[in-house]
Amino acid sequence: MKYASRIECLADKSLLNAFEIPETEDMISFSAGFPSSETYPLDAIKDSFIKVIEESGKEALSYGSTSGYARLREIIGSRLAEKFGLQYSLDEIIITSGSQQGLDMSGMLFVNKGDVVLFENPSYLGAVNSLRAHEAKLIAIDIDDEGICIDSLRNALEKYGERVKMIYVNPDFQNPTGRSWSHNRRLEFMETMSHYDIPILEDAAYAELSFEKKVEKPLAFYDKHDQVIYLGTFSKTFCPGLRVAWLCAPKHIMEKYLLLKNAADLSSSAIAQRQMAYYLDHYSLDNHIEWITGIYKKRKDIMAKIIDKKFPKTVCYKNPGGGLFIWLELPAEKDGRELLKRSLKRKVSFIPGTSFYPAGDRHNEIRLNFSNMKPEKIIEGMNILAEITSEYLEE
Amino acid sequence: MKYASRIECLADKSLLNAFEIPETEDMISFSAGFPSSETYPLDAIKDSFIKVIEESGKEALSYGSTSGYARLREIIGSRLAEKFGLQYSLDEIIITSGSQQGLDMSGMLFVNKGDVVLFENPSYLGAVNSLRAHEAKLIAIDIDDEGICIDSLRNALEKYGERVKMIYVNPDFQNPTGRSWSHNRRLEFMETMSHYDIPILEDAAYAELSFEKKVEKPLAFYDKHDQVIYLGTFSKTFCPGLRVAWLCAPKHIMEKYLLLKNAADLSSSAIAQRQMAYYLDHYSLDNHIEWITGIYKKRKDIMAKIIDKKFPKTVCYKNPGGGLFIWLELPAEKDGRELLKRSLKRKVSFIPGTSFYPAGDRHNEIRLNFSNMKPEKIIEGMNILAEITSEYLEE
Repeated sequence: MKYASRIECLADKSLLNAFEIPETEDMISFSAGFPSSETYPLDAIKDSFIKVIEESGKEALSYGSTSGYARLREIIGSRLAEKFGLQYSLDEIIITSGSQQGLDMSGMLFVNKGDVVLFENPSYLGAVNSLRAHEAKLIAIDIDDEGICIDSLRNALEKYGERVKMIYVNPDFQNPTGRSWSHNRRLEFMETMSHYDIPILEDAAYAELSFEKKVEKPLAFYDKHDQVIYLGTFSKTFCPGLRVAWLCAPKHIMEKYLLLKNAADLSSSAIAQRQMAYYLDHYSLDNHIEWITGIYKKRKDIMAKIIDKKFPKTVCYKNPGGGLFIWLELPAEKDGRELLKRSLKRKVSFIPGTSFYPAGDRHNEIRLNFSNMKPEKIIEGMNILAEITSEYLEE
Repeated sequence: MKYASRIECLADKSLLNAFEIPETEDMISFSAGFPSSETYPLDAIKDSFIKVIEESGKEALSYGSTSGYARLREIIGSRLAEKFGLQYSLDEIIITSGSQQGLDMSGMLFVNKGDVVLFENPSYLGAVNSLRAHEAKLIAIDIDDEGICIDSLRNALEKYGERVKMIYVNPDFQNPTGRSWSHNRRLEFMETMSHYDIPILEDAAYAELSFEKKVEKPLAFYDKHDQVIYLGTFSKTFCPGLRVAWLCAPKHIMEKYLLLKNAADLSSSAIAQRQMAYYLDHYSLDNHIEWITGIYKKRKDIMAKIIDKKFPKTVCYKNPGGGLFIWLELPAEKDGRELLKRSLKRKVSFIPGTSFYPAGDRHNEIRLNFSNMKPEKIIEGMNILAEITSEYLEE
């Protein structure tokens, strides 16, 4: 039996494995980028579901519209306006089955086999995977503490010219590095990109998980040329199990997305969308987010403190201002995969940084998730990791 | 901004329109292929949801595994064994977000741009659309009252040879024609295909909606060469709003599907899957199906009786033994789209047959759904349609 050529591009199973292998009870996991399941507002979710079934059960259990439940799109539009100054009309917002589907559809929409897609280096594995499935040529752009490097970006744009069909970026508390782009870097980036007719896929999955009051405006806010496709999700701020996310795009682009969404799965779950809308109408997601970011900040602080105190001084990291991850850099000759092998024996897991480089070009980093384990587990796991890391670095 | 070339292949908006334009209250709709929403077991669904939240809320609202909730796959496996004699192990079953996603992933898995995919003519619009999105060359194979025409199939296989990468079929109460393949035709088809190393995508969406006790075995039952990919769904037998369907494939093929599913949306809704599993464990889906097929049969009978009595004798149809559709054939020179124009003015809708021909080669048929309207509405709508059809045919 012959497979399509795209299948050969999907060799990296790191992400799939993260979803397929159930973490054992006794494992301390800093691996997955999941919100903490103790924070899910179970009673509110139960109440929302019951109300939706009672008030509109028949509609909620039927096929929904391909673009998504109108009331939910309306609320998302208002939140984006209020929080980030984004102005999207109802027909510029579509509901997707998780942001992953928005990524996948963007590959479908813009990328032919062999087309160049630019990426931050390192970048989110799921985006890399979905673009591999569309046989994109992935070109990595360096990042520094301020965000994407404009020189590296300009070089790539010049070198690949019209072959560049999309750029994927994650400017807020990036997965995997936890870094956020500075205000100036955002402006510089948008100015640079304004000279090219290339769509910018802005993944804002972590934008609302800030530990500080002040948040940077999204790239979409500075978009004067209808270039930005904006992806948001409730998976990190609320819960991933409902699979409710959104994609915003200028209307003429949205028409194409609708065709692709219809071909991909007809529509997202109507009941999950109505449930989410009911919750947003009757509860405060903002209060919930304030509460969970408080919890995550405390966990991050515990983790950071142990790194500062007990890890070898040659291990570097930047204290993140939000999100779910700390990115640790070992000395250049060391390998995160070797460290993982050893720490798994002690029942501590994380993801080696190599997995986040489309071209696999660096090995000496690791990604630590801090949202998902309770404080006592973080302390236990990080102490073990400090020990193992010290041993490994002394060799 | 430049789109990928596949977008140009997605010009047909018939299916999208069916999902986007809300039917007005006063419209009598024979259009959509939906189950009747009055049949949804709302109390049982509510109960299932509450129990899932109470018993395993945290897991249910987290990301699920990419392959799907194990207990649900187990139950699906047992049902397939019991009802159809199919033997699939747990790792040969994957949960998809509706069967549409299974279709889309199959296109991703087997079809490169320009590859030939064989189809029944006419065929399900959603399958046609998703394969258009993968830039397949669609080759239509004739069907008759017994199923796919083996001569027409052989001709295509000979003509296109190794360019043929998949065949899509819908052997039970087909959408749109309502026809089921005979036992002999199934055997003949599988024998013919056994000489070719080509995957057979068997869409069994309507297989359980039989009006008679006896059901034909699926093609997968006769599969000796690991050729059949089998798609099933709860959308027609239970409700579409949960978006829970399944895809079965031999293990070595399933590994590839898992990679694609992971890239497409990471995982299907964990809570919807657990809800469905709870329902299946604590209620009887078989009783539910028996009840709804009884309702649908009555509605079909009402519709058929009016066609027999009041439609011009030049209008032909075959009384379906199950499913959701009656397929009406007008005289060859007439056009279903013209009939629709007129009937919409009288607030009656259906789908013109043209939409179901990948190459648009016939115009004189229409598809009537009988599941979705109550008897009094069917009588009212069919009487109007009889009147309009008579007028139109007399011109």
